[in-house]
Amino acid sequence: MTRPRVVIAGAGFAGLTCARALKHAPLDVLLIDRNNYHLFTPLLYQVASALLDPGEVARPVRELVRPLGNVEFRQAEVLGVDMQRRILSTDRGPVPYDYLVLATGSQSDFFGNASLAQHAFGLKELGEGLALRNRVLARVEATQWVAEAERRRMMLTFAIVGGGPTGVEMAGALSELIRHVLKKDYPKLDLSEVRVILVEAAGWLLSTFDPVLREAAKRSLEKKDVEVMLNAKVAQVTEDSISLASGEVISAGTIVWTAGVRASGLGAVLGAKLGRQARVLVDDTLQLPGHPVVFVIGDLAGAVVAGQPLPMLIPVAMQEGRRVAATIKDMAANGGASAFVYKDPGTMATIGRNSAVAQLGRVRLSGFPGWVMWLTVHLVNVVSFRSRILVLINWAWDYLFYDRPIRLIVRADPDHSD
Amino acid sequence: MTRPRVVIAGAGFAGLTCARALKHAPLDVLLIDRNNYHLFTPLLYQVASALLDPGEVARPVRELVRPLGNVEFRQAEVLGVDMQRRILSTDRGPVPYDYLVLATGSQSDFFGNASLAQHAFGLKELGEGLALRNRVLARVEATQWVAEAERRRMMLTFAIVGGGPTGVEMAGALSELIRHVLKKDYPKLDLSEVRVILVEAAGWLLSTFDPVLREAAKRSLEKKDVEVMLNAKVAQVTEDSISLASGEVISAGTIVWTAGVRASGLGAVLGAKLGRQARVLVDDTLQLPGHPVVFVIGDLAGAVVAGQPLPMLIPVAMQEGRRVAATIKDMAANGGASAFVYKDPGTMATIGRNSAVAQLGRVRLSGFPGWVMWLTVHLVNVVSFRSRILVLINWAWDYLFYDRPIRLIVRADPDHSD
Repeated sequence: MTRPRVVIAGAGFAGLTCARALKHAPLDVLLIDRNNYHLFTPLLYQVASALLDPGEVARPVRELVRPLGNVEFRQAEVLGVDMQRRILSTDRGPVPYDYLVLATGSQSDFFGNASLAQHAFGLKELGEGLALRNRVLARVEATQWVAEAERRRMMLTFAIVGGGPTGVEMAGALSELIRHVLKKDYPKLDLSEVRVILVEAAGWLLSTFDPVLREAAKRSLEKKDVEVMLNAKVAQVTEDSISLASGEVISAGTIVWTAGVRASGLGAVLGAKLGRQARVLVDDTLQLPGHPVVFVIGDLAGAVVAGQPLPMLIPVAMQEGRRVAATIKDMAANGGASAFVYKDPGTMATIGRNSAVAQLGRVRLSGFPGWVMWLTVHLVNVVSFRSRILVLINWAWDYLFYDRPIRLIVRADPDHSD
Repeated sequence: MTRPRVVIAGAGFAGLTCARALKHAPLDVLLIDRNNYHLFTPLLYQVASALLDPGEVARPVRELVRPLGNVEFRQAEVLGVDMQRRILSTDRGPVPYDYLVLATGSQSDFFGNASLAQHAFGLKELGEGLALRNRVLARVEATQWVAEAERRRMMLTFAIVGGGPTGVEMAGALSELIRHVLKKDYPKLDLSEVRVILVEAAGWLLSTFDPVLREAAKRSLEKKDVEVMLNAKVAQVTEDSISLASGEVISAGTIVWTAGVRASGLGAVLGAKLGRQARVLVDDTLQLPGHPVVFVIGDLAGAVVAGQPLPMLIPVAMQEGRRVAATIKDMAANGGASAFVYKDPGTMATIGRNSAVAQLGRVRLSGFPGWVMWLTVHLVNVVSFRSRILVLINWAWDYLFYDRPIRLIVRADPDHSD
């Protein structure tokens, strides 16, 4: 008798956790992703801010699934699903399934603003993190040739749009990179010409956090010389400026967009019903309505609990992955699906090298204690032992010497094909 | 009184050593390079074979010149020299000099063979190393979808052209990567379909080494399942094949070219007299004939000692850099230039993770003792203390667990401009 085949599309936190939770089950699991690596997304901003290299925040998926025994990996782009014939279609060919788990995640959402899509840097993918790092370093380097102060100021203004955790972390890390690390490299750099601006449409940062922590994060950023602009809605951007809805125009040579995220395009391809942020609406069992062997988890899924859609967070993704793995094991043993219940473990965001805000149940931490908590949680969760050592060395270097090792402007040459 | 200005074009081993040797001199030094980093080229093949990340083999030039005090760095592409007016022209603008040191290095030479230039991978630049890594990993990954054995074999054949140190090191490292490291990732990979071929036009490998060591290197490679093809001259390549002058055609999905190197194009732009490999012919003082304030060093220079042109090697580059620094200091103090004398410290080449050949004066080492020597010399010379720790961790991981950490297919997204 052949064993039922579970196909999981996406090797992010949702898909990988689901695959791991199917270890030892009498099922064959095929994990598919368009990249050959699993990205530890919470540290992507540290790639962009020249602190870590790709090998330290991403692991080959094959390495991660190797110990599982019953899980295979294939690299491919998912194109669609034929629910009738139970076939996942990919750019490498068709993949039949008995159970299908869709976990293709989310992407930057520019809300149809073409100027943003063209000029702003996203910060969701490893390639984007590297591109942003190259841009920041190249901009600072290039100013050394520029005699005109006005133009230098434009080149040294970095606008980060979006006051969520990614925007807050990126703004803090970038300001530190320039004011402490690069300042040593560029003795002639006039720091009064540098601006790191965090632009947020709402009246506060970190809307999912307690108001006390929001204020703490704002103060912490301002202490790091980040200009926090609240109630500032972006209307339009160009190569070197950003226009707000208020009419104000800021000259800015680099614009980072973290203000909008929506689910991957797969939901629309499925013809499924989509909720907010283009997330696929699912039953409380995380099944696609009317398709009991198709599950949707992670950022792609719009699971609603107590009338509220669950946020796009790693703990949600991981818990959903575990729930669906358990359901599939039950179904394969002729059981049924059971409802998903989310347990909120808390959230945190870091601001530079020694400050963070953390909200865990009733505990609220900010400043240095928050940062120690952030550091511990992230270090424990970086996916491999070796990465943990390397990440710790780089963090220690940054902490002790204000030195970021990876200040290299590097692009891989085109590799001719594939 | 303004101090004389020394402009050094190129921050490789020659230019950087020259700048370092000018520390404390009553001169202002400007170091220029088209990249913002100094590349430790002997370990580039380890980037290509997924063992090290860019941050471990390259350091920002600014970090390296920071302690020197009198040396400034600027990133720019050198376009030419106006010897009359003593101005170096760059893509960022003109740079006046009192003394000029040209050290722009060397590049791959495809000997005008357009098919090679189009399809083969060079291995001189960091971007090329990353591209080759991406290609190797993507090829092996892609074979998992291919049912046709013939096509799989083509995709799993890697031809390295050129039996010098770079070719030997790359072939050994690549064979180990696939047969030991990737084999664990790909349980279904049939190693009998994998070919790593080292193609050399001469009748031996490592022509600058003692015949005993040449043989040792060949045996060592063959023990690592590298096919060594001697007396094999490449006529033509395509996307997926390599044709030899003998008429033999080898189906090969990836071709690496290490068989030809020539000096950077700057020599031709200068209108200077060029020798073999397009190297600029210089006086025995390393001055450009007729231009006493212009020096040429490193791979770009064709210094002839005892009728023999000096090889393109790091020790030559570094010793030339030091000689020219001393000459410039003398000239600035109203002295004259003195002749360059080369002291050969020996050469080595490594073959995979536990074997190397080394030739130091009368000492000849091969196998494991050679490798220990290679490891010591390279670890001591990797340019920073932090890199040394990280490189050592990665080497230990590879040695103990046959594990290469950086098996990621990553490309930086385009960064919109600059």
